Amino acid sequence: MKFARVLSESREEILVAEVGGKLMRCEGASLIDPDLKMTDEVVKAEHFLAPVDPRALVCVAASYRAHIEECNLEEQPEPVVFMKNPAAATGHECPVVIPSVCADEVDYEGELAVVLSQDCHNVSEEEALERIAGYMVANDVSARIWQLERGGGQWIRGKSFDTFAPMGPFLVTPDEVGDPTDLKIKTVLDGETVQESSTKLMIRGVAELISFLSQGTTLLAGTVILTGTPEGVGWFREPRKLMRPGSTVRVEIERVGTLVNPVVAEK
Amino acid sequence: MKFARVLSESREEILVAEVGGKLMRCEGASLIDPDLKMTDEVVKAEHFLAPVDPRALVCVAASYRAHIEECNLEEQPEPVVFMKNPAAATGHECPVVIPSVCADEVDYEGELAVVLSQDCHNVSEEEALERIAGYMVANDVSARIWQLERGGGQWIRGKSFDTFAPMGPFLVTPDEVGDPTDLKIKTVLDGETVQESSTKLMIRGVAELISFLSQGTTLLAGTVILTGTPEGVGWFREPRKLMRPGSTVRVEIERVGTLVNPVVAEK
Repeated sequence: MKFARVLSESREEILVAEVGGKLMRCEGASLIDPDLKMTDEVVKAEHFLAPVDPRALVCVAASYRAHIEECNLEEQPEPVVFMKNPAAATGHECPVVIPSVCADEVDYEGELAVVLSQDCHNVSEEEALERIAGYMVANDVSARIWQLERGGGQWIRGKSFDTFAPMGPFLVTPDEVGDPTDLKIKTVLDGETVQESSTKLMIRGVAELISFLSQGTTLLAGTVILTGTPEGVGWFREPRKLMRPGSTVRVEIERVGTLVNPVVAEK
Repeated sequence: MKFARVLSESREEILVAEVGGKLMRCEGASLIDPDLKMTDEVVKAEHFLAPVDPRALVCVAASYRAHIEECNLEEQPEPVVFMKNPAAATGHECPVVIPSVCADEVDYEGELAVVLSQDCHNVSEEEALERIAGYMVANDVSARIWQLERGGGQWIRGKSFDTFAPMGPFLVTPDEVGDPTDLKIKTVLDGETVQESSTKLMIRGVAELISFLSQGTTLLAGTVILTGTPEGVGWFREPRKLMRPGSTVRVEIERVGTLVNPVVAEK
């Protein structure tokens, strides 16, 4: 199944399921509500919202070897973890807004995102997969100067600007996605393919990441995990390729969907 | 006013106001609910909980020059920002649990915490102060090996273990605290004073920090900001002084309160 959260033509926030190309209204507190129920009412969407309001936005860096190399990082024995402010989440076709405090530095990172349906604490890899509500396409938008030069080494500030975490359009249930470690992933900036890889190449799979992150740590239900980006980001290219006002960035993940976002400057 | 969230003797979560040494039941969705109302029912607390479930836990590092020096960090032109997983929050007199994945590495950081009552986006310093629900005493407990050696340079993992963000006992309203940039702060580990400073010595005050953090970024209502720790942390002492099972750590902040936590090992 594919679920989404949309703004209706009457500006109402509505949960929907996509069935045969139609959006059917669902009733429930959120898309991870275990009592979510589909109705037979067809809804017209004005636009998509982020499928969930992330309880927390936890990110894994350095997940693909070719990306580690392009950034001149060293491969670490354990996953590298950072977070984004949860208010950075935005939806499909919503603009990524470059804030006035950013320079010409805003980069894309196409990523597979996981949404947890239940709290996870000290879970095994097998248990981890049972606690996934679904998968989303995401873009870990990054202000590279804030991230790498103006953060005293900590990446959070450059990763946390509003709209810097587009996700969706859909939350796709695990049965529909199948093996999350075998999905083609591609990012296209202004018509040019800039990232093209497969989640097969992740150093650690989704289950291993959730299990690792949950050791001694409760990942609350509704936490969104961004699982890392493959090679091809714009900042380390020669010449650089960045997200600028007027750009359109598209991230596609096999069996999960296609996330498109225009880029604008803060007014 | 001083507000708290407690577990009653009948194991019910209750919001309370402290009036003349008594805890009076309050009604509302949370302590930052603008419609919070005090009743005349006196409550007996089994123990304190974290005053709020942080919507996000945003932390400022390198806030005091003497701490920057003891860590051999360089002073940065802008605040250094990191986050903790929101589930790390715990209350006064609740144990800090050292997880089995940690070694002998767990350190204290006494800090003034701020709770936001409203969303903040691009707020000025003046507006920032109006959006503070109150202040708390906090301890930014840190697993130093995870933070400094096993995180690929990112601190989040070593800062995010459950119970690594004790806060409370009370949320103290701004009128009762007065000037947040003039509060004595002290940390006592096993009876020995290990940190003793004043928020006067913060490089940037509370209003400036909130204004900075909100540029291009929405700090959601219920966000807790830890404003940084003064010098005297245990990891950089010779010999080291760490939080170990059996330890008791106490953080005191003038006009805000005293937060005490015992330390235990994960079972």
